[in-house]
Amino acid sequence: MRMKVEVRLKPGHFDPEGDVTAKSLRDLGFPVSTVKVGKVYILEVEVSDRKEALKLAEDMCKKLLANPVKDDYSIEVLSP
Amino acid sequence: MRMKVEVRLKPGHFDPEGDVTAKSLRDLGFPVSTVKVGKVYILEVEVSDRKEALKLAEDMCKKLLANPVKDDYSIEVLSP
Repeated sequence: MRMKVEVRLKPGHFDPEGDVTAKSLRDLGFPVSTVKVGKVYILEVEVSDRKEALKLAEDMCKKLLANPVKDDYSIEVLSP
Repeated sequence: MRMKVEVRLKPGHFDPEGDVTAKSLRDLGFPVSTVKVGKVYILEVEVSDRKEALKLAEDMCKKLLANPVKDDYSIEVLSP
């Protein structure tokens, strides 16, 4: 099952990469006020049950992909 | 306007970060065959016209956010 996990900083956390990106975009003339940067993981998970895949992805976030202190994450099934 | 830009490696490009993530997940016991890693940018763009915002985001990808040689990108309007 193909899944997408998005990991982003929780609101209020300092995002220096986003700030630098916003500044660079403004320097190029783009009317951008803020940028937040996160990661996206496209996972090929070897299970066929949708519910089980979602549970596994949730566990992966808790154990490796996201930092529970500072990150929010969202999980999506892309295709069976 | 709040927008989301996702930048991912084009198929066929070597993704060492994804490979290491896949290995780490397998070491933790997760049945994962492949992982591809990309970036997600949440942008606050100071325009009110949806079409103009999409055009600007496209330009931002071409000029800064994505590498046209090795990256694919997708753009989405999250909220006005």
